[in-house]
Amino acid sequence: MNAVDIIVKKRDGQALTKEEIGFFIRGFTAGEIADYQAAAWAMAVLWRGMSREEITNLTLSMAHSGETLDLHDVAPIVVDKHSTGGVGDKTTIAVAPMVAACGLPVGKMSGRGLGFSGGTLDKLESIPGYRVDLSVEEFKAQLSEVGLVVSGQTTRLAPADGKLYALRDVTGTVPSLPLIASSIMSKKIAAGADAIVLDVKTGRGAFMETLEDARQLARIMVDIGQGLDRRVAAVISDMNQPLGRAVGNALETAEAVATLRGKGPDDFWEHCLAIAEQMLILGDRAKDGASARAMLGEAVHCGRALEKLMEWVKAQGGDPSVLADPPSMGVAPIVEAVPAPRSGQIAAIDAREVGLAAVGLGAGRERKGKPIDHAVGIVFEAKVGDRVAAGDTLFSVHAADRRRCDRARERVLRAYGWAEDKVEPLPLVYEVID
Amino acid sequence: MNAVDIIVKKRDGQALTKEEIGFFIRGFTAGEIADYQAAAWAMAVLWRGMSREEITNLTLSMAHSGETLDLHDVAPIVVDKHSTGGVGDKTTIAVAPMVAACGLPVGKMSGRGLGFSGGTLDKLESIPGYRVDLSVEEFKAQLSEVGLVVSGQTTRLAPADGKLYALRDVTGTVPSLPLIASSIMSKKIAAGADAIVLDVKTGRGAFMETLEDARQLARIMVDIGQGLDRRVAAVISDMNQPLGRAVGNALETAEAVATLRGKGPDDFWEHCLAIAEQMLILGDRAKDGASARAMLGEAVHCGRALEKLMEWVKAQGGDPSVLADPPSMGVAPIVEAVPAPRSGQIAAIDAREVGLAAVGLGAGRERKGKPIDHAVGIVFEAKVGDRVAAGDTLFSVHAADRRRCDRARERVLRAYGWAEDKVEPLPLVYEVID
Repeated sequence: MNAVDIIVKKRDGQALTKEEIGFFIRGFTAGEIADYQAAAWAMAVLWRGMSREEITNLTLSMAHSGETLDLHDVAPIVVDKHSTGGVGDKTTIAVAPMVAACGLPVGKMSGRGLGFSGGTLDKLESIPGYRVDLSVEEFKAQLSEVGLVVSGQTTRLAPADGKLYALRDVTGTVPSLPLIASSIMSKKIAAGADAIVLDVKTGRGAFMETLEDARQLARIMVDIGQGLDRRVAAVISDMNQPLGRAVGNALETAEAVATLRGKGPDDFWEHCLAIAEQMLILGDRAKDGASARAMLGEAVHCGRALEKLMEWVKAQGGDPSVLADPPSMGVAPIVEAVPAPRSGQIAAIDAREVGLAAVGLGAGRERKGKPIDHAVGIVFEAKVGDRVAAGDTLFSVHAADRRRCDRARERVLRAYGWAEDKVEPLPLVYEVID
Repeated sequence: MNAVDIIVKKRDGQALTKEEIGFFIRGFTAGEIADYQAAAWAMAVLWRGMSREEITNLTLSMAHSGETLDLHDVAPIVVDKHSTGGVGDKTTIAVAPMVAACGLPVGKMSGRGLGFSGGTLDKLESIPGYRVDLSVEEFKAQLSEVGLVVSGQTTRLAPADGKLYALRDVTGTVPSLPLIASSIMSKKIAAGADAIVLDVKTGRGAFMETLEDARQLARIMVDIGQGLDRRVAAVISDMNQPLGRAVGNALETAEAVATLRGKGPDDFWEHCLAIAEQMLILGDRAKDGASARAMLGEAVHCGRALEKLMEWVKAQGGDPSVLADPPSMGVAPIVEAVPAPRSGQIAAIDAREVGLAAVGLGAGRERKGKPIDHAVGIVFEAKVGDRVAAGDTLFSVHAADRRRCDRARERVLRAYGWAEDKVEPLPLVYEVID
């Protein structure tokens, strides 16, 4: 068996065996198969695709390329969630304590933002002291004590995926369903959760722009996970416009906190319920959606979810006092309210453009390793389907300087679509695949 | 402009501009664009193909990635030939002196064998002292004085091609028509010949197995060359069975010498005429095939072609005395005549299998840089279309030891196809494209 033969086999459209995939991933992880061979292979996979069986074998090979966690000494069932990435997606910060407050342990390894898409770790780091670099031992200990932990992906888990993802990022081989699905699922499998809820975003601000692509990705990931004896469900949710009202790290964290106080935007609250509901069902804490929602509503209403957030943040080194006083996470020097340039019905707010405007403000990063500004961002006052009058505040820009404020304002204004007639609000969830 | 965008554009099936191709090739040559990016790009090119314009721009970019030769201070017209590679292909060693003896300067940079295919440099190195590492200055001086020079490709010419070819070889991206065509033509363009005859092989022992593939490759290369103001013609010739009788370095060199004495095998002589005829026509030395063949026959008949061979070899440091006494180039310890296992008509001698048997004897190399044994090889006594009786000598194996002799004999025996009824000899030339 050698690397070139495996590349050629995939190039010629043939399915790779479990042994061939294992050989390639092991060799690549060990540095015996060169980056340029993996790059050619990735392009061949993007071209030719992979069968369900190949994707499962690839997932398993990458999951087993390093350490794998077994959390059963900590809890009988641990649930995880994963979002394919979007704009304004602060779901984990609200949902994880909601679910944990219902007695279901949540153990999650999370990522950073890249491109127009934000990352949960960046948002959590708005909280002074919050540690994202827990060791495996610390991860398990906190899961056991608090029932809730959200840390950065350790390089000890699924190192093949980390290496392959970095390579795909610079070789034009990111948008391949088999590679995306195996990348996500290998990390989830290695991280040891028994139940996994996938939040697969679709629309202008998602990697999967069309519903059909999102559905395919969701189906593949659910099948892989179930084939590897995990409980998996996927929620296909809208990412045509930003989720909630806030885009930007501290602004989003504050919005998640407000949501746990029962004061979040309606669309974000509804989205949190849709995800959390699946987590409770998969984790055997609720028998159906209605009872799950009742539990979740109660956990927020009585303050247990907010308490769980405080407990979690504190356990992970963060200063929980900022959660009671969100501006203490940082306020941008310029906060400009932008009036609506016209009256009418909002027909679109292009989430990708908004994400890129936020990156332009410094809220995100175009390249890995760049620092970000936690205080900056955009807050929307109206969403798709809302009617506004000319001069009403449409959104506000939180910026570090005048130049970037102006640029973001213009970019976000261009992201709007307008209509005279009534526009229906966008759906939040398109379907659930399980 | 950046490398990833260019990879993505090709991956998505779009044509690259001249500027994009130039940027990519310059960056790759300079080491600013990484090997893994070039590998992904090459796979995308293999997948999506390239337009005629893209291939021409790629050829030009690679031709101009290093030094380019201008031979017009040496001769008004210099002709070159190139074979896409085959088994028993010693054409250059006979044809170059035939053409030079007709007064047309031949300046050629040649390659080594790889895989089942032999290389002219390896064959010429059977001649003790023959130098393949001429400097550009030596190349031009010999072309001026002798009117004939065949040296190795200098790394100063088309370095982008050398680097890209090495990468393609280990990333499964060799069999791409645009990449093959631009690789061949960039070297030819950089080497400065005004007229180029391409010997495009087709069949079992060729890289282009089907006539259709060979025709496409020939057409692309002729168009590229003509688009860059060179006179180019392509001869599509048979490589289903080995060319001539001898396969192996010294054995083939000896066969080329015999041909210049008028004692070569008929098929090889006819093939030489087909190639040399085009060279004389493109080089303005003959107005048509008939007059070219008359000149070539005369050059061999009167001994001028053989004299030119001697002069060439001597000028290039080789010992011309071995040409009068071929066994002095080396005789293998074992020479075994293999009898026909049956009576019948020979219907096939699979050239690829014969090439691989020769590699097994040590006549070729599976990996670059490996030493080869010049004395070993196979000599055929009968070709496709011939009738033999059981027990007649079918071929002889020239081997370094018993084990390898046995292995080669069995492999070559299996390469034969047999028929009871009359079998037509294989055609030598399928068509000429100009």
